Amino acid sequence: MPSAIPEDSVGLVTHQDFTVEETLPLECGRSLPGYNLRYECYGTLNADRSNAVLLCHALSGDHHAAGYYQPEDRKPGWWEHLVGPGKPIDSRRFFIVCSNFIGSCKGSTGPASINPETGEPWGLDFPMVTVKDWVRTQAALADHLGIGCWAAVIGGSLGGMQVMQWAMDYPGRLRHAIAIAASPRLTAQNIAFNEVCRQAIMSDPDFHEGRYSHFDTKPRRGLSLARMIGHITYLSDDAMRRKFGRETRGGKSFSFGFDVDFEVESYLRYQGSSFVERFDANSYLYITRALDYFDPAAAFDGSLSAAFASIQAPFLVVSFSTDWRFSPERSREIVQALYAAGVDVSYTEIQAQHGHDSFLLPIPQYMAVLRAYLDRVAEETGA
Amino acid sequence: MPSAIPEDSVGLVTHQDFTVEETLPLECGRSLPGYNLRYECYGTLNADRSNAVLLCHALSGDHHAAGYYQPEDRKPGWWEHLVGPGKPIDSRRFFIVCSNFIGSCKGSTGPASINPETGEPWGLDFPMVTVKDWVRTQAALADHLGIGCWAAVIGGSLGGMQVMQWAMDYPGRLRHAIAIAASPRLTAQNIAFNEVCRQAIMSDPDFHEGRYSHFDTKPRRGLSLARMIGHITYLSDDAMRRKFGRETRGGKSFSFGFDVDFEVESYLRYQGSSFVERFDANSYLYITRALDYFDPAAAFDGSLSAAFASIQAPFLVVSFSTDWRFSPERSREIVQALYAAGVDVSYTEIQAQHGHDSFLLPIPQYMAVLRAYLDRVAEETGA
Repeated sequence: MPSAIPEDSVGLVTHQDFTVEETLPLECGRSLPGYNLRYECYGTLNADRSNAVLLCHALSGDHHAAGYYQPEDRKPGWWEHLVGPGKPIDSRRFFIVCSNFIGSCKGSTGPASINPETGEPWGLDFPMVTVKDWVRTQAALADHLGIGCWAAVIGGSLGGMQVMQWAMDYPGRLRHAIAIAASPRLTAQNIAFNEVCRQAIMSDPDFHEGRYSHFDTKPRRGLSLARMIGHITYLSDDAMRRKFGRETRGGKSFSFGFDVDFEVESYLRYQGSSFVERFDANSYLYITRALDYFDPAAAFDGSLSAAFASIQAPFLVVSFSTDWRFSPERSREIVQALYAAGVDVSYTEIQAQHGHDSFLLPIPQYMAVLRAYLDRVAEETGA
Repeated sequence: MPSAIPEDSVGLVTHQDFTVEETLPLECGRSLPGYNLRYECYGTLNADRSNAVLLCHALSGDHHAAGYYQPEDRKPGWWEHLVGPGKPIDSRRFFIVCSNFIGSCKGSTGPASINPETGEPWGLDFPMVTVKDWVRTQAALADHLGIGCWAAVIGGSLGGMQVMQWAMDYPGRLRHAIAIAASPRLTAQNIAFNEVCRQAIMSDPDFHEGRYSHFDTKPRRGLSLARMIGHITYLSDDAMRRKFGRETRGGKSFSFGFDVDFEVESYLRYQGSSFVERFDANSYLYITRALDYFDPAAAFDGSLSAAFASIQAPFLVVSFSTDWRFSPERSREIVQALYAAGVDVSYTEIQAQHGHDSFLLPIPQYMAVLRAYLDRVAEETGA
């Protein structure tokens, strides 16, 4: 908790809701009878509406990208390092929008919302949502805000997949695309980790086929395990070694039992149990499935460059050297396909120790690359 | 199921039991009131007892390293590719011994055995066992078999840790040491994976604090999850891509649900559920903890070469290029410490696609390296 809100923060913020009454057709063939998007905005939209930037969040993220809800908040938004006055995504220049995607659990419509047909939470009756569906709802939000064309669409990890989808589906509605620590599709290993996480949740006896709220419980054990597995894949082997090594908790000798001996065990158990308090298990299932399914090349006989043929916006692609969840190799696949599709693309691999988590951290070289690119965006868009 | 047992197999085998009535003091400070080691032997001990080779198994392995129990057996022993007449570990030259370690569940004393004090299965009252304890019991078996000095002690993964422990604790009792796909200690990431596996088992409501047999059940969900996680780490990202890619099961289109869509999901679910039928959950806890605790350098202020100072036996160290569980970097740490300790050491990194699992597979370069080294062993020991 900062004693005062830092001057380089967007400061106190509030969320807003964009509620749509019309039916939303979905990629899976089903539809949603209306939906809500919860979102936040920072900065000021300029007169010619040319300075708007859309941020796309990752698996466990939300619309609260920057600032504080109250001065007492222990933590600011998830991208506070990058978003704010004078920061790389500068709220003095840009009008910055971030919305929680549908299927999540932070205020937008998702499996924990009430199904109007039954008056009960949707649970697993919620229709499958995809990256394409998210982008469509974000475009509706842009219409609502009067934003015909984003100066840039920016996202990391799963957010980077939304950036690609935006550039493919609405080529005339973004001037620049910035995809960070992203992948053009999950590998078999990525899918395997997601599957184990889902099995952990779905095999928890408190899951009740997704109707756990009806039983006034939740699959705590399963969701906690899923988060623990996730955390291992977000950090590099090297980052874990630097952070924890083989240190025992409190420097004690081995217990020769199954309680916590090592610091890394303590860390994981904490991450698992605290996540359960702030995230919905069904949302975890839906979002990991959306990750599995994302594969724009599939509709083009596996040709990513063919999938990218509609793209007009110049791209900045950023990867991190120790990211083994979405490795630099995956980013280079994106870059090569963009290049083959004739897209103006810049690429940087940042030397960073923190694995996939790096995209959330204030790594100087990363900050500098983003700052320089967004200077270009501001110049070209009059922001 | 082979229609006939192949000629290059050790053929039909039977296990034997070595039962010790005396109390076994353990590294943890507790002791076992006697124990059983189940083991198998292939080949013939020569007159001067100089041709005996000890094989050390890994986490889910056992004493059944080669051959068949019955002609109908669907699968031979776990190291059939390497062990047999004319194979790299040649049963025509060597007398080959493999024992199941205590704490496991394949016939040697472990948490599923009866605690003589209570007349009930030990469960979590079983004392913690370590790599050092395993080696001590194997030395007792050597005494029992009249083997004063092994021509070689050989093991992969956790088996490689036993090889190192043998060379440190009984320097005069082995002529050669072969450590394959091993590590001088687990990294924080390794411990983290083990911890998630243990949490999966221990948080299963059917675990009953390890007393599940009393309730006529077992923690199927938890053990299955543990095995699924293990399998992801045994295979390289590349091997998974080659084996499964993003293929959907039966080539079908997406279900837009949470049943199996991808081949890799089907594979993992099968691996998980079949493991539950053949492995004890408590043993999984004990063995992963023994892995966590192994760290010979710790008693020497972190100096592995100091820990290795007692070693006399020449070493062959083998690693595999795509092994990310116990990476080549870990093997090189072993090699450097052996070299610094003045030990005669040979090292090979095998180019192989299959990750950690490679040590079980008939990879030509790997087979050739083992064959050549074991020729040397045979020559020096008169085998």
